[in-house]
Amino acid sequence: MRSTQNIRAAEASRTLSDNERRLIDAYWRACNYLCAGMIYLRDNPLLKEPLRPEHFKNRLLGHWGSDPGQTFIWVHLNRVIRKFDLNMIYLSGPGHGAPAVISNCYLEKTYSEIYPEKSRDEAGMLNLFRAFSFPGQLGSHCTPEVPGSIHEGGELGYSVSHAFGAVFDNPDLIASVVVGDGEAETGPLATSWHSNKFLNPIRDGAVLPILHMNGYKIANPTLLARITPQELEDLFKGYGWTPHVVEGEEPDAMHEKMASTVEACVLQIRAIQEQARKANKPDRPRWPMIILRSPKGWTGPKEVDGHQVENFWRSHQVPVTEVKSNPEHLRIVEQWMRSYRPQELFDEHGALMPELQDLAPVGERRMSANPHANGGKLRKPLAIPDFRDYAVPLDSPGSKRVSPTENLGRFLRDVMKSNMTSFRLFSPDENASNRLQEVYKASPKTWMAQIKPEDADGTEIAPDGRVMEMLSEHTLEGWLEGYLLTGRHGIFNTYEAFVHIVDSMYNQHAKWLDKAKLEVRWRAPISSLNILISSLVWRQDHNGFTHQDPGFLDLVSNKSAEITRIYLPPDANCLLSVADHCLRSTDYVNVIVSDKQPHLVYLDMEAAAIHCAKGIGIWEWASTDAADEPDVVMASAGDILTQEALAAVAILREHLPKLKIRFVNVVDLYRLQPSTEHPHGLSDRDFDALFTRDKPVIFNFHGYPWLIHKFTYRRTNHSNIHVRGYKEKGNINTPLELAIQNQVDRFNLAIDVIDRVPGLRNSGAHLKEWLKGQIIDSINHANTEGTDRDEIQHWKWPQG
Amino acid sequence: MRSTQNIRAAEASRTLSDNERRLIDAYWRACNYLCAGMIYLRDNPLLKEPLRPEHFKNRLLGHWGSDPGQTFIWVHLNRVIRKFDLNMIYLSGPGHGAPAVISNCYLEKTYSEIYPEKSRDEAGMLNLFRAFSFPGQLGSHCTPEVPGSIHEGGELGYSVSHAFGAVFDNPDLIASVVVGDGEAETGPLATSWHSNKFLNPIRDGAVLPILHMNGYKIANPTLLARITPQELEDLFKGYGWTPHVVEGEEPDAMHEKMASTVEACVLQIRAIQEQARKANKPDRPRWPMIILRSPKGWTGPKEVDGHQVENFWRSHQVPVTEVKSNPEHLRIVEQWMRSYRPQELFDEHGALMPELQDLAPVGERRMSANPHANGGKLRKPLAIPDFRDYAVPLDSPGSKRVSPTENLGRFLRDVMKSNMTSFRLFSPDENASNRLQEVYKASPKTWMAQIKPEDADGTEIAPDGRVMEMLSEHTLEGWLEGYLLTGRHGIFNTYEAFVHIVDSMYNQHAKWLDKAKLEVRWRAPISSLNILISSLVWRQDHNGFTHQDPGFLDLVSNKSAEITRIYLPPDANCLLSVADHCLRSTDYVNVIVSDKQPHLVYLDMEAAAIHCAKGIGIWEWASTDAADEPDVVMASAGDILTQEALAAVAILREHLPKLKIRFVNVVDLYRLQPSTEHPHGLSDRDFDALFTRDKPVIFNFHGYPWLIHKFTYRRTNHSNIHVRGYKEKGNINTPLELAIQNQVDRFNLAIDVIDRVPGLRNSGAHLKEWLKGQIIDSINHANTEGTDRDEIQHWKWPQG
Repeated sequence: MRSTQNIRAAEASRTLSDNERRLIDAYWRACNYLCAGMIYLRDNPLLKEPLRPEHFKNRLLGHWGSDPGQTFIWVHLNRVIRKFDLNMIYLSGPGHGAPAVISNCYLEKTYSEIYPEKSRDEAGMLNLFRAFSFPGQLGSHCTPEVPGSIHEGGELGYSVSHAFGAVFDNPDLIASVVVGDGEAETGPLATSWHSNKFLNPIRDGAVLPILHMNGYKIANPTLLARITPQELEDLFKGYGWTPHVVEGEEPDAMHEKMASTVEACVLQIRAIQEQARKANKPDRPRWPMIILRSPKGWTGPKEVDGHQVENFWRSHQVPVTEVKSNPEHLRIVEQWMRSYRPQELFDEHGALMPELQDLAPVGERRMSANPHANGGKLRKPLAIPDFRDYAVPLDSPGSKRVSPTENLGRFLRDVMKSNMTSFRLFSPDENASNRLQEVYKASPKTWMAQIKPEDADGTEIAPDGRVMEMLSEHTLEGWLEGYLLTGRHGIFNTYEAFVHIVDSMYNQHAKWLDKAKLEVRWRAPISSLNILISSLVWRQDHNGFTHQDPGFLDLVSNKSAEITRIYLPPDANCLLSVADHCLRSTDYVNVIVSDKQPHLVYLDMEAAAIHCAKGIGIWEWASTDAADEPDVVMASAGDILTQEALAAVAILREHLPKLKIRFVNVVDLYRLQPSTEHPHGLSDRDFDALFTRDKPVIFNFHGYPWLIHKFTYRRTNHSNIHVRGYKEKGNINTPLELAIQNQVDRFNLAIDVIDRVPGLRNSGAHLKEWLKGQIIDSINHANTEGTDRDEIQHWKWPQG
Repeated sequence: MRSTQNIRAAEASRTLSDNERRLIDAYWRACNYLCAGMIYLRDNPLLKEPLRPEHFKNRLLGHWGSDPGQTFIWVHLNRVIRKFDLNMIYLSGPGHGAPAVISNCYLEKTYSEIYPEKSRDEAGMLNLFRAFSFPGQLGSHCTPEVPGSIHEGGELGYSVSHAFGAVFDNPDLIASVVVGDGEAETGPLATSWHSNKFLNPIRDGAVLPILHMNGYKIANPTLLARITPQELEDLFKGYGWTPHVVEGEEPDAMHEKMASTVEACVLQIRAIQEQARKANKPDRPRWPMIILRSPKGWTGPKEVDGHQVENFWRSHQVPVTEVKSNPEHLRIVEQWMRSYRPQELFDEHGALMPELQDLAPVGERRMSANPHANGGKLRKPLAIPDFRDYAVPLDSPGSKRVSPTENLGRFLRDVMKSNMTSFRLFSPDENASNRLQEVYKASPKTWMAQIKPEDADGTEIAPDGRVMEMLSEHTLEGWLEGYLLTGRHGIFNTYEAFVHIVDSMYNQHAKWLDKAKLEVRWRAPISSLNILISSLVWRQDHNGFTHQDPGFLDLVSNKSAEITRIYLPPDANCLLSVADHCLRSTDYVNVIVSDKQPHLVYLDMEAAAIHCAKGIGIWEWASTDAADEPDVVMASAGDILTQEALAAVAILREHLPKLKIRFVNVVDLYRLQPSTEHPHGLSDRDFDALFTRDKPVIFNFHGYPWLIHKFTYRRTNHSNIHVRGYKEKGNINTPLELAIQNQVDRFNLAIDVIDRVPGLRNSGAHLKEWLKGQIIDSINHANTEGTDRDEIQHWKWPQG
């Protein structure tokens, strides 16, 4: 099966001269030789001597299967980079393809430039071999330590979305992305092919996917390799691509096919871009993609101990084991490695032959040295308008009600206006639901698929839109990561419960940041990954239980303190201040939790900015302890929870006017941790000054209560900290009813105070009965009449 | 665009008589009328009076957009169920389609049978209307409370995989599954179409997907609605289906098209099954699927306030708001609801007209009453061989080394052999990697795609295989959930780090179980969801940092204590006992953490069974405190961590023979929680008896250390519990090196003891220096020579 384009290519006159083909093949052999060397050798790197057991590593680790296919792709991309002076990066999707990438980094000198001990000579080659899969050194994925990489691929599924993220607003860039046919079975990858409906050929670059069909995963064939060629072609046409198939195993024929196909694809990309840019008319193109069918473990041992290895899953990892003890195995490896004829590839000192060196691009055109793959180098700080200009003016605390996210939308609108080529907002069809719709005034949503006349009435979609919406959290998160890793800025906003869909992506990005920031010095800082969580657990009036899960924060806090930040701004003004801070920061994951419903505003802009900068503080206007030691500390973190905690204080102030209450609000959750655990952590002295050393603390928390204990269990007063939060009780409920079920409501909080402050058991007994009555009344009211969502927010705030 | 099949169908003579079409349309109108009533009315349910503001609910909540399309599908499925006596269930993929399903449950009487107050009369109809989206009552998804549902759909993406899970080993069953075109954009859904390569027409049932292309999500068009019809057809052909398109909006024409198409699909399914079953030759068929293009909010208001509503995203939720205050809006709703002509549908008492009642299937043929959707009713306990027969015989603790999962594989092999139609094992291409390959002796992996001759050499795939492997955690988890929900049994096993890919699926299944178990009495218990986590954080010698994340347990513990269980068997015999227990249990999520590498076996089978039944206990053979109060408690949870803790004790026993050490091992992690928090929790008295009230406790834990604090922070001795665990430090490391980096190794644990036991600071000073030296030596050794994975596991266990 060949696509029409492919037949046309095959019929054309040959693309490669005999000499060019010979050189490309030699370069490819050099790559493959290095890959094998990385897996096997700890000595005798140039095979100057016959291989002996002591030349082999003690422990053989690594993955061969995907390597030769990927090196094949790389050398052919090199050819077109040089021929057309392309600005291209490479993303390696298959799980364990690092040797393919590292070998090329080494051959084109980038590796030696960064890691001088891996010099391009015999000693350096040996260092390279030894470092691979050696404890603490080179991993078998394209880790942050690998130059040219923005995609590690330890977990599978995100290569295509990362590639698209890289080329948005990079009109000159081509991201070539190798997709393993194993990876292609994952859900995130399967939908990410649709990213082509969001790529504008005028202002964006291009993605050239190469589906590497080597046919096998760890121990199974791949699905796509075992459907009919017609189905495969239909599938990719259905996804909106123009597939080009390169299939075979005989190197000479394959070089010619691949060279002509890659060249045809590049020309097709250029033609699409030129046409769109000249006409200034971005019709959705059918971008080219390549399906490369080549054997797994290509050019490796064909058979070992009577079992097929090449072109079979047995070549996935180390294709021949026990080489130290099994002479036949040793012979197979030697024969295999010598089949690349290293003496033709490297001189006696281990340097790549000059005629081969000439095949690689130079300087920043090398895929291993392209600055887009070290995006911090290209990053320019955002132009950010003064967030104070978007403040909600306020006479007194709680005198206004505003949707925090709706107000934020105005700020983000102008952030976008000021950064029309370097800032994007990402959401799974939820920007408007999360009340950020004001941003559409700066730019509509990107939409390269069909637009109908009725869309003019409020749909806000256009080919040159900059707001990214697709109903795939995976794709959005992947796009944003790719966008950030190449030096730009953005925010992902999503429903709280469903941010768990990208838990694993968060884990992987956090791990990447951790290594890149703390261990890989040549990587420049990139913009933080900003995740805005809205449509919170506490306001799921008609969505119910499935939409109630605040546990993402638990997950976040498992990752390194050096790169994680959690903010729970209590109101609209605080959200502005937090957002401004996060947009300026680098190398963090900032998680912002903010509801979309109208909420009371407590702090004017100046007070909010100060409060957020401190991250935690006493709200004196809500407290009654003056400068005294309080009887009780009421603390809160989260907008809805702060409202209820304040309402509880209002009740207590009215009914128990002598009670000394201190009100503490936490914006920056990590302030609670000891300073020894997190850079934002308060010293014990400062913590004690806020929370006392021995007074009861009622802490009303947005999420699962345990997180507050996790952060505070080493504090002096921990045993007195009583945390309320979501305890997995819910249904479709009114907000007050849900709060009551989880005991985060004003009435239960007031009862908590009465129960815990010594001496109140008697004097507060009457109030407690009244509070219990309020709880019953509220539930009854909800159960008979339903409740308008607004009415529960009001309370009587005592004057003076 | 129409498929060939469709043209053929259209050309055939009419499927519906005029009368049948009239009746079907009336039934459909009755459904739609009820849907609208659920969203709007609190009085006047039969519109006997003109609508007045007080007839409307105070708060309008619900989703109209998807309802009329889904009711349309349901009534047409009813027709073929009756015509062909089909055994069919219905899965509602779109997020908020509950009114469509509930209205049908009500009309076919199931609803009234279960919830008598929702009787089929005027009062019952009013109760139904009032209950919908009312606090604490009927949600807008197909929650566990909805009869006939096994798929809630609050989170999107899993409808197709659930449907496939339902029909595996149910040769007679057809699962019709409505996929929203919004949901179709998610990654999990996008790859789940490939499930057709795992469905064997001989022994499995069939899935009939109906892609409901109503064109819009919350606020955007859907991607699939805005690509060309040719692309759409190519896509589904590429996925291996035969698509049939039904498109239009004029009800009469649509009824005819849908009737003929659904009938054609059913006949096609039957033909495929008959052919395969007769020939006993399961070639992969191209199963039929339907693409239904109908307007969003079909038959609803066309326009409101000058904005298009029908066939646009504006009909997603409540299509007309402010009906109490806006007379024009009230008029629109009245006109719309009366357009269904309720007086023709219901008699004056509110009962569905008899001629319409006859249209629904009866008894268990009703999709709302099909027993497969209440799988616990059909569930039969597994036939389980005696796990003791698979024991590792043992002379003394630590005298053998066995891979726990490899040994488990033998047990699972025979579990499978004994339950060849009701048990399956699911894994993302990792069963063999996780060493469970012995199960292939009972049955190979299911594979309906192409099989090549070379597969005979060890690939273990066959059309009638029962082990499910595809590189999509989402699809596997979805299949298993569907399989369990319909009354069968299974295990999902996956790499520890990547179980996070299904975090959100776990959350949703746990929430389903929580409600189904505790609140929905008519649902019978289903088999527990068993998740076996292997390839653990501590043994990622060549995979490195990306593969190190034990945080799934944190997520698990956020869900209800009534349905969550976590087991960390320390060795192969304990794993057998735990697995046996989990396979017998119902209505839990059981998470089992067990490594695949060879580990020491500590307990013989009898001791293991007792230890696991207790879930926690003192290992006296490892302790030196006799019956005395110990100087220190060394505790462990997890196989690798237990080994290091024991090794630390061995060192201490040798060097500090007078030190009284108590060794406690925890299998059932929830034993640590107070009994007030979890049914498995120890009483404080029992906890104190194990961990003392005041002695130092060194706890070596498999996961992030916090979880132990979370479970124990209310215990008497909590301030003395010192937890070691993974603290996010890693790379490609030798096991000992990784342990040392995270301080869970024997040397650091011994130092912990010296540091924390009063009086050892001096007497243990010399040992501490030696231990530090060991740490440095170990790191140096790893950094110079690398280390074979085995050598660190040995230690000298003092005799006597």
